[in-house]
Amino acid sequence: MDKDKPDEEVTAAILVIGDEILSGRTKDKNIGYIADYLTTIGINLREVRIVADIEDEIVAAVNAMRERYDYLFTTGGIGPTHDDITADSIAKAMGVSIDVDPRAVAIMEKRYGPGEFTPARKRMARIPEGADLIKNAVSGAPGFMIGNVIVMAGVPRIMQVMLDDVAPKLRTGAKMISRTIRVERPEGVVAGGLGRVQEQFEDVSMGSYPFFRKDKLGTHLVLRATDEARLDEAIKVLWEMLREEGFADHAREVDADEAAS
Amino acid sequence: MDKDKPDEEVTAAILVIGDEILSGRTKDKNIGYIADYLTTIGINLREVRIVADIEDEIVAAVNAMRERYDYLFTTGGIGPTHDDITADSIAKAMGVSIDVDPRAVAIMEKRYGPGEFTPARKRMARIPEGADLIKNAVSGAPGFMIGNVIVMAGVPRIMQVMLDDVAPKLRTGAKMISRTIRVERPEGVVAGGLGRVQEQFEDVSMGSYPFFRKDKLGTHLVLRATDEARLDEAIKVLWEMLREEGFADHAREVDADEAAS
Repeated sequence: MDKDKPDEEVTAAILVIGDEILSGRTKDKNIGYIADYLTTIGINLREVRIVADIEDEIVAAVNAMRERYDYLFTTGGIGPTHDDITADSIAKAMGVSIDVDPRAVAIMEKRYGPGEFTPARKRMARIPEGADLIKNAVSGAPGFMIGNVIVMAGVPRIMQVMLDDVAPKLRTGAKMISRTIRVERPEGVVAGGLGRVQEQFEDVSMGSYPFFRKDKLGTHLVLRATDEARLDEAIKVLWEMLREEGFADHAREVDADEAAS
Repeated sequence: MDKDKPDEEVTAAILVIGDEILSGRTKDKNIGYIADYLTTIGINLREVRIVADIEDEIVAAVNAMRERYDYLFTTGGIGPTHDDITADSIAKAMGVSIDVDPRAVAIMEKRYGPGEFTPARKRMARIPEGADLIKNAVSGAPGFMIGNVIVMAGVPRIMQVMLDDVAPKLRTGAKMISRTIRVERPEGVVAGGLGRVQEQFEDVSMGSYPFFRKDKLGTHLVLRATDEARLDEAIKVLWEMLREEGFADHAREVDADEAAS
């Protein structure tokens, strides 16, 4: 695909690897962060999966998703313990060999004092053949990118610096712009009109999200598109509907921060 | 499978349906909640997927997961708007018809005043043929269970009351018990010993989770099993390892609350 065609859609998926998420012990904080991040830079997140630390599960999920989307981001399973099997599973999925990587060793040797670069930590220098390293400014041990698969740590603050390192290298598409109208009426009352507006705009995605504030029921109507002019048109038609249905006096446009608060 | 065999493993998956999660607009709060809940009642959560509000995606994910696990829980997409297509997609996946359900209508008619039971709200009474309703004490419109698929709302407080309603009807297996040892040493230093202990206990799952508290690095070693006696044995062998490696003075057992804090 062509880097000079910014209107083209670029798609992505996330694979979260970790028993601790499935058992409930750890609450995932990476999916929402990556989702926001990708939306901001113009990559369309289309699917997420969470699987256990089981090689066959990881291999199957990696292969299903890397073939289907432009990028696959993985989080988790690249630490020093026996159950950190992500790097080996990725190598298997891609059909390449894996070994301790001299570039990763060089980075990590600088981090650790004499005797501290334990065999367990050396596991973290295992990188599939042909991968590019992703910098980890927090704790040294790198992530990596191989083909369209981006392999990052599960610890949020480490994942975040890895995402910052790799993001500038990725192809991005047209950015989604969104606008939100808050209506102080229940979703079930506003929904019919929104559906009729949606029918007129195939290229603008329209969603409605109920909210409860104290004892008040209301609805956020969120319109999203890559073309600003089309989004403006859709907002105009939406306001016409709100006026016709008698909701205009209970509605106003809000920014994303206010909608989230 | 047999309700009288409590040691048998009962498995589950979650399918989260919603563009708003993939765009980052809404941060999912249901996965972690359901994960905790299922662990507590003795159901083993094995996989999670998040897909967009697209019928083909929902149908494919439902069929992949309902065949593979004992139960599939879905959240989202059962509201009143045009993009709420979960009920219809589930009917399609299961190969059954769907229509406005008189039982659901009866519940909802009691909720709404004259003229308030709008056509959009009537969408929420569409239930696949042969499904059992799940009560929604918060806002009326029910969820449903069909075969091994449990369909719940995406709004967390509604999802939670639906889960409370359906849970007593589910088959459950042996409950996982877990114990946690906190070691005030970095993961890369403790990991090797844990791996050697794991080799001796195939039926006890052992994970290590690094933590950062102020400037302190440490590791939680979490052992999980359904058999309490085996878990006790594994904890004993783990303490032997910690003593041999000189970590015992930096380690103590903590309960789940302390580990999470």
